[in-house]
Amino acid sequence: MESTKPEVDQYRRRLLAAGATGAAAGLAGWSPASLAQQKPLPPFASFKDANRMIVHSASGIETKRSAFGTSGITSNDILFVRNNIAAPNASITDNPDAWVVEFDGVTSSRKLTVADLKQMGLASVSMVLQCSGNGRGFFGHKASGSQWKVGAAGNALWSGVPVKAVVQELGGVREGMRYMTSTGGEVIPQGVDPKKVMVERSVPWTAMETAILAWELNGDALPLAHGGPLRLIIPGYYGVNNIKYVKRVAFTAEQTGANIQASGYRVRPIGQKGAPTQPSMWEMNLKSFVTSPSGEGAVKAGTAQIHGVAWSGGSPVSAVEVSIDGGKTWRAARFFGQDMGRYAWRQFVLPVRLAAGSYEITSRAIAEDGTVQPELRTENERGYAHNGWRDHAVKVTVA
Amino acid sequence: MESTKPEVDQYRRRLLAAGATGAAAGLAGWSPASLAQQKPLPPFASFKDANRMIVHSASGIETKRSAFGTSGITSNDILFVRNNIAAPNASITDNPDAWVVEFDGVTSSRKLTVADLKQMGLASVSMVLQCSGNGRGFFGHKASGSQWKVGAAGNALWSGVPVKAVVQELGGVREGMRYMTSTGGEVIPQGVDPKKVMVERSVPWTAMETAILAWELNGDALPLAHGGPLRLIIPGYYGVNNIKYVKRVAFTAEQTGANIQASGYRVRPIGQKGAPTQPSMWEMNLKSFVTSPSGEGAVKAGTAQIHGVAWSGGSPVSAVEVSIDGGKTWRAARFFGQDMGRYAWRQFVLPVRLAAGSYEITSRAIAEDGTVQPELRTENERGYAHNGWRDHAVKVTVA
Repeated sequence: MESTKPEVDQYRRRLLAAGATGAAAGLAGWSPASLAQQKPLPPFASFKDANRMIVHSASGIETKRSAFGTSGITSNDILFVRNNIAAPNASITDNPDAWVVEFDGVTSSRKLTVADLKQMGLASVSMVLQCSGNGRGFFGHKASGSQWKVGAAGNALWSGVPVKAVVQELGGVREGMRYMTSTGGEVIPQGVDPKKVMVERSVPWTAMETAILAWELNGDALPLAHGGPLRLIIPGYYGVNNIKYVKRVAFTAEQTGANIQASGYRVRPIGQKGAPTQPSMWEMNLKSFVTSPSGEGAVKAGTAQIHGVAWSGGSPVSAVEVSIDGGKTWRAARFFGQDMGRYAWRQFVLPVRLAAGSYEITSRAIAEDGTVQPELRTENERGYAHNGWRDHAVKVTVA
Repeated sequence: MESTKPEVDQYRRRLLAAGATGAAAGLAGWSPASLAQQKPLPPFASFKDANRMIVHSASGIETKRSAFGTSGITSNDILFVRNNIAAPNASITDNPDAWVVEFDGVTSSRKLTVADLKQMGLASVSMVLQCSGNGRGFFGHKASGSQWKVGAAGNALWSGVPVKAVVQELGGVREGMRYMTSTGGEVIPQGVDPKKVMVERSVPWTAMETAILAWELNGDALPLAHGGPLRLIIPGYYGVNNIKYVKRVAFTAEQTGANIQASGYRVRPIGQKGAPTQPSMWEMNLKSFVTSPSGEGAVKAGTAQIHGVAWSGGSPVSAVEVSIDGGKTWRAARFFGQDMGRYAWRQFVLPVRLAAGSYEITSRAIAEDGTVQPELRTENERGYAHNGWRDHAVKVTVA
């Protein structure tokens, strides 16, 4: 979205001048993580546990590495929040069943309410939601955007109707449609070219096979901060594709021309502008990180149960290795807890005896197809898709 | 615990007279569910979502049938609460790592802190926690105790150290020990015979194979209301065996003589007193219930996705059938969501076209060993172990 900056900044200044700071959520400027903990939670995320979050901005709130615990599911109290533009008015979640979503590019185009969707099917999936820029804070070139470390990711339970069930009800996808293009219900500020700020994303149409339209998150009605009343959930895909407040799902011959698709969320060399020819942020790559030790508290000499999480949007994770010496040597970790399916993350643990000294503790995941999580990040303009294990290491002093 | 009533009531009166209502949690009298919704949440459970709970008493709080949702996990905000006697002072959760638990009946008896336990291993399990008396409210003979309907049960993620790992560290279980006998950290009121009110339960010692000592619930530090800082978790066993504030785990030759074991939680004919010769409330039986329609809201004509949950402490659930005509005819439901392991509950769904009219909707689970959830409850004095599908039916009028 960097190409929209001038307009967005102008809009933000206008709002701030009018004192409408709440409405500016999602448009506020970025700031380094080091300053973040002073910031209050924005109103739409006030239910979060502030002690376990890092507030980068009113639209960028990260889970602390130490907060993930060992239960496998990231609770609503700590799941990260990221909005591209301001969320709609909170009143849209007052009566979730009345929310309307339009389907197009199917045999019988139609508008359906959530109440209608609830008659059509039911599915629940455990899925890692991760911001494309998670790990951006480790890049060296000051990539613009939230300076996330590890916590713009979480594994949650999403329930709703399978997109496929709805599509079947509407007679199937029309011939020649190659993308599923979905649109968020955010309000476009007056005077701004919609294409420049609208949240509309296209993914390969086959993604509908596993996608759901979700109204429930970890057992609660989907909160506004996470896209309620209705969010498109595409297991294995980066967060931006999981359209919040989804108001339209269309099967299209081409990708949307909206900036967020055409030039935004494109992986390209540092200094280059975004363009449709560059790779789009679709399926997540293979990644893991250690959640304990987190680097936040002191570690005493003795046995440490080093644990963390591993996941992939592609070939499933088959093993995880842990290093305590910055990658010189590796040992096989053991999975623990329940396997929650191929789109969930898997928890791993390795008991290690730590004597007094300094350690650099990290993990690397290995996928069924033999892919190994790489050591280094792939340098790119916007700091996307960071899965290098070196930057994700935790430096620990054991006393 | 009915035999302890005189002492408990006396204690409660004394406390209430002194204005120490908070400390009386767990000792308050029972009252019918119909009056329950007026009661406030007790302080130690104030974090619960009152709108989704039924407060029977300060120590008996049930999840509404309509509150379970479709995510599979019961969040901390709505998980039921049941204490036999007052919880210890909330300060015990201030520094969970300092909590001490004593191990006995092992080669090297020892006291260990939670910090020690955290070095010894790590496990996480998805497990149904269910009160022995869940469903008591359906019995006809006014069995004493909370008049639970379906919601003294929930499926949650518990993390901690495997008991077996601790036992191995302590040299193994001593010869001849046939029970694992564990003791809660509740404070016994002065002047009361400890045996009459203490929470100490024995289970077959082999239960240690899957048991954990848990300090985490659904990703949060285990709250006091659920047994924090440390709770014994025995997958597949009724709630009472999952000792809260556990301060001692002993392998013993005999079952404890505490009333809660010797005469309490014993299944016997109506009118009989409890005795050690009667079956103890250990492994949970095969059970399911419908969570939607819940009978609370109106149901419109059209397709309803009838859904619910099924579980067993014994042979795993292999199928669920649903009836909309009070058990005259049955149709096979489909499982949905993730299988979270043999101690979790499984979600099922059946889409049914409902025309205007009256329905009696219920479910019955079938286990791998061929067991079928029965139609009727087994009548028993204390209203334990109710898994009859007829009483669990929801009456629905479709308009």
